[in-house]
Amino acid sequence: MVHGRTITVSTAGFSDIINISGEVQSTVSSSGVQDGLVAVTVIGSTASVTTIEYEPALVEDMKEMLENVISKNTRSRHSETWGDDNGFSHMRATLMGPGITLPVVDGSVLTGTWQQVVVIDHDNRPRNRDIRIQVSG
Amino acid sequence: MVHGRTITVSTAGFSDIINISGEVQSTVSSSGVQDGLVAVTVIGSTASVTTIEYEPALVEDMKEMLENVISKNTRSRHSETWGDDNGFSHMRATLMGPGITLPVVDGSVLTGTWQQVVVIDHDNRPRNRDIRIQVSG
Amino acid sequence: MVHGRTITVSTAGFSDIINISGEVQSTVSSSGVQDGLVAVTVIGSTASVTTIEYEPALVEDMKEMLENVISKNTRSRHSETWGDDNGFSHMRATLMGPGITLPVVDGSVLTGTWQQVVVIDHDNRPRNRDIRIQVSG
Repeated sequence: MVHGRTITVSTAGFSDIINISGEVQSTVSSSGVQDGLVAVTVIGSTASVTTIEYEPALVEDMKEMLENVISKNTRSRHSETWGDDNGFSHMRATLMGPGITLPVVDGSVLTGTWQQVVVIDHDNRPRNRDIRIQVSG
Repeated sequence: MVHGRTITVSTAGFSDIINISGEVQSTVSSSGVQDGLVAVTVIGSTASVTTIEYEPALVEDMKEMLENVISKNTRSRHSETWGDDNGFSHMRATLMGPGITLPVVDGSVLTGTWQQVVVIDHDNRPRNRDIRIQVSG
Repeated sequence: MVHGRTITVSTAGFSDIINISGEVQSTVSSSGVQDGLVAVTVIGSTASVTTIEYEPALVEDMKEMLENVISKNTRSRHSETWGDDNGFSHMRATLMGPGITLPVVDGSVLTGTWQQVVVIDHDNRPRNRDIRIQVSG
């Protein structure tokens, strides 16, 4: 059995981190799947899905870390060629990947107590992001 | 058909790397699944699952690389706010992600000869880690 | 229902990036799966699968970024021990992971318009790479 839902979230860009754990669990609950997998994937080439302890200090740490590894001021042929100045956004997204797959056990997404599912929007402007939550079981 | 098992491994923390390939294959074998997927996911926000050629020299290289990219001495608001000094652990885990999904073909996890499934515990102390191995087919 | 195919692509190594979106979609189409998941996984410990906007300027940016984060000149115990000089290849692959899972909706792989599925071969020589495309639905 496969059950999917596409949600849309508004972001501020620049690796803004949005907690979507509630939407992932509610999609699993609606599906009726007790044991299976849930794949959470953001559509597009400048965003990522991962997990984090979603508290404000760590969210800032993570954004700073990404800036240290791939700065928004990194010289980019993509930015120079297309003039959209978001080469760094693409590189962050390609490094981290577009999605994760988590286990569903007894109708619940199995994560730690201090572990939330998040979308990170690396683009260089506010956007509305479509995320597919696909449940299989 | 879905078949899952949770295993627990003891780690030393600080990106200790543990080979769990045997447990992943034995869970697939027990499931009876011949063709499908296996998702391997660590529970918690300071650890990762990935693959590596599991030999001692490379394991040391990998730990050193993680220290170069996100040092345990990185200033962290999370560490300063909560006093648990593991901001770097969270950042490493969020960058790498909590799990991987591999193909199951003819009853075997399809990986290379020199490629093992590992959990990397980034936390700053020894821990017992729960890892879910979820087989679907 | 599970349907899988193994494709082989020739690469130049050194994080050469190859677009395999067409093969992923054609495997999904052949499977007859309308709604499900597709896991795309490269076999071996020195390559990765991810998504990118596949255009030449960004492909060069991404290769340069990987060189900045984990240089091919990084000192490596693995390279010194085994003499194959590809410690950096292993570290890039382990950091990025071996594969991704994407949703299949109405018979199509759900990705953005400017988002392609790619294999990145980090090894230090040309290779033929096997990639498993496993469809479940």
